[in-house]
Amino acid sequence: MNAPTTASHLAPELSLREVPPALIQALQSRFGARCSTAQAVREQHGRDESIFEVPPPSAVVFAESTQDVADAVKLAAQYKVPVIPFGVGSSLEGHLLAVQGGISIDVSRMDQVLSINAEDLTVTVQPGITRMGVNNAVKSEGLFFPIDPGADASIGGMTATRASGTNAVRYGTMRENVLALEVVTAQGEIIRTGTRAKKSSAGYDLTRLMVGSEGTLGVITEITLKLYPLPEAISAATCSFPTIEAAVRTVIQVIQLGVPIARCELIDANTVRMVNAHSKLGLREEHMLLMEFHGSPASVKEQAETVQEIAGEFGGNAFEWATTPEERTRLWTARHNAYFAAIQSRPGCRAISTDTCVPISRLADCLLDSVAEADASGIPYFLVGHVGDGNFHFGYLIDPAKPEEHHTAEALNQKLVARALDLEGTCTGEHGVGLHKMDFLRREAGDGAITVMRTIKRALDPDNILNPGKIFAL
Amino acid sequence: MNAPTTASHLAPELSLREVPPALIQALQSRFGARCSTAQAVREQHGRDESIFEVPPPSAVVFAESTQDVADAVKLAAQYKVPVIPFGVGSSLEGHLLAVQGGISIDVSRMDQVLSINAEDLTVTVQPGITRMGVNNAVKSEGLFFPIDPGADASIGGMTATRASGTNAVRYGTMRENVLALEVVTAQGEIIRTGTRAKKSSAGYDLTRLMVGSEGTLGVITEITLKLYPLPEAISAATCSFPTIEAAVRTVIQVIQLGVPIARCELIDANTVRMVNAHSKLGLREEHMLLMEFHGSPASVKEQAETVQEIAGEFGGNAFEWATTPEERTRLWTARHNAYFAAIQSRPGCRAISTDTCVPISRLADCLLDSVAEADASGIPYFLVGHVGDGNFHFGYLIDPAKPEEHHTAEALNQKLVARALDLEGTCTGEHGVGLHKMDFLRREAGDGAITVMRTIKRALDPDNILNPGKIFAL
Repeated sequence: MNAPTTASHLAPELSLREVPPALIQALQSRFGARCSTAQAVREQHGRDESIFEVPPPSAVVFAESTQDVADAVKLAAQYKVPVIPFGVGSSLEGHLLAVQGGISIDVSRMDQVLSINAEDLTVTVQPGITRMGVNNAVKSEGLFFPIDPGADASIGGMTATRASGTNAVRYGTMRENVLALEVVTAQGEIIRTGTRAKKSSAGYDLTRLMVGSEGTLGVITEITLKLYPLPEAISAATCSFPTIEAAVRTVIQVIQLGVPIARCELIDANTVRMVNAHSKLGLREEHMLLMEFHGSPASVKEQAETVQEIAGEFGGNAFEWATTPEERTRLWTARHNAYFAAIQSRPGCRAISTDTCVPISRLADCLLDSVAEADASGIPYFLVGHVGDGNFHFGYLIDPAKPEEHHTAEALNQKLVARALDLEGTCTGEHGVGLHKMDFLRREAGDGAITVMRTIKRALDPDNILNPGKIFAL
Repeated sequence: MNAPTTASHLAPELSLREVPPALIQALQSRFGARCSTAQAVREQHGRDESIFEVPPPSAVVFAESTQDVADAVKLAAQYKVPVIPFGVGSSLEGHLLAVQGGISIDVSRMDQVLSINAEDLTVTVQPGITRMGVNNAVKSEGLFFPIDPGADASIGGMTATRASGTNAVRYGTMRENVLALEVVTAQGEIIRTGTRAKKSSAGYDLTRLMVGSEGTLGVITEITLKLYPLPEAISAATCSFPTIEAAVRTVIQVIQLGVPIARCELIDANTVRMVNAHSKLGLREEHMLLMEFHGSPASVKEQAETVQEIAGEFGGNAFEWATTPEERTRLWTARHNAYFAAIQSRPGCRAISTDTCVPISRLADCLLDSVAEADASGIPYFLVGHVGDGNFHFGYLIDPAKPEEHHTAEALNQKLVARALDLEGTCTGEHGVGLHKMDFLRREAGDGAITVMRTIKRALDPDNILNPGKIFAL
């Protein structure tokens, strides 16, 4: 193991481990052309949507089956070489970066739907399929899979980071929507966790332990997900507010009243402008809630009326309805493209995303002070949030050539996280820890809980080959 | 460690470990009269609602604070002596039995509500409070805690067994409703898992690992639960069916249509007779669904109409409504007392409960064949089920003086579990593994997953002092 190199502002601490040529030869002998050491392939697998720059993995194995994954892990284990599972590369937190060297196992070719059980509202898929892929496969059954992080992420990656997105306020996150898994352990063994039963008290909840473990406890090779009947009626609306506070107070009251709102997103005026410029939407350039209601026609009408009334009390106006599926898709696509709209608003910039989540009663306290700080900093930013869950994202748009901007952005993030933790919240609602939030996690969980996590990791992966250097230092 | 004794039909395998007098002295010196070695106290803590007979623990410590629990565990750890947390003693699976000797830590005096955060729909409680205790405490805020296993179980016990009950079809189980925990580890350290944020991607999901770990990974000393606004309207109804199959087909269709039914219980005709005899209810003595609908008045009406229509298609008749809160309470109390009603129907009997749970499409296959087998066996039984979740319970009422009845009942259970596993279900939907289902769990999870569970257990509790001999053999 080499000595750690010094971290620059975009280069995290490295501790590169040797990848012996014998391993590469063994992988090439097992996988042929599906084990690539081409520079372009390695570089593509050596980065994600995070701001970090790290040398790429030594090789990329394109797995096409669970057995491929198991064999690749077994070979890597023999040489104590790190393996990093790779889906579509949409991580925001550096999950995919080879900070200790090693090989990437690309599961994007494992993209099949293995079985749809429409009567049970479940589907079993391979990890490389994306959320849109799942939805395309189950649509004709009158079903859908609600979890939608902005990117068209892989289901494997979404499972590994415990992802959520705009529908979580009603349908929960990957934590609530994964029923069962097949996983390859650090020893290259294939295990199954959970069943298709809706609930179970059968031993330790290994499914939930794997969900959110960011590739550090096993490589996920099969996922059984919950599905939902497509709602009989869907209705989407935007509502503009004079202040962010007015929008947030509206959301708090909607949630506290138990309105089963399906989506409830905040977009600040500044970000609406970016979205308009990018997606040519012509939205009113004010702070905005973008909402969706699911249910029977009567229930949707009832929910919408309740929310309109509450919004009115806080000065919300111009409830505008997207009545056709096309209009709705246009709105939500624009919302999901907010990140890219923001990136394009400052050519050459990179975004440092925050991901705090607090109890709903603390949302205004957490958000408004952080808006004031961001405004005072002079760093351009976007602000969007799954505010029905108390989760929001600032994206500080920094010039990567200016270390001082990076430092300012990190300082804003530090303050925001400290505030969220003081308010009994979490440093990451849905993006995961990766490289970026390791210090934050230590503060949030405390030494005792981190010790338990480390003990589990060491026991299950004694040679620390599964995505090492992520979540916590060992 | 003594050699295991031979198992009789009511006595599981024992492997009693020495409890040195020095430990008892140290506990008495720390806890005074709150450490009891009185025979009656030990015996009360040495049994639960399971059929097993096992020698009681050597002492009982009545903990009144987290620090008490931590100190008791630390002392036990020093002498490598088992500790078994005890709430109200309502386990059905032998969780509380001292099969390796040791001491019981009774947390029933830790029964305080620590904080109600009505605006966030959360409450933080000590483990000894019961589910009814929680509901009494939060009612005045217009909130409720839905999870209700039949017994008025302790929240600590419900967390440790991943309990659910009649409302789980709509509100989920303890898996979905525990936000955060305080836990004392095998080393006597106090850790916290999770926060009050509704969702999080911050590291391993230690909360979910502890939920359902049956006291084998830590002693739970504080629980933060989700609450729900009391529904604006609640409506309960019974509906009788000519056959169990007709009732089950109705349920399957209700669930597949996505009707957000809050409770959906099957009671077979035989059990209705027992309940009538016990609770003087005058219910029609036919197979019955007992249902409840929550929501706005319009939504409740809509749900009830849909279900009535489906039931009608399957020959369901006599939809009878419980319109007042008193009538509803009477019905649900009777349902929750079905277990006791059944026990009293055969004086001196003990019940062997089954707890399989299968995907909803497999429910009829699983249930009907098992009913035929139970009928053919000649053993009296009751049959109730949270059928909206695919979960049901036979209770075989055996004469404890007749080993052949026990063997017949266990053979029925074996067949039922094998069937449920073949149908992609689980051996335990909500009661936990305890002593009773260790063999079943091995079949369900497979050696690979059991190895992972054992590895975690050994790493976190190397001296195997936390409720040893439960879930799996080490």
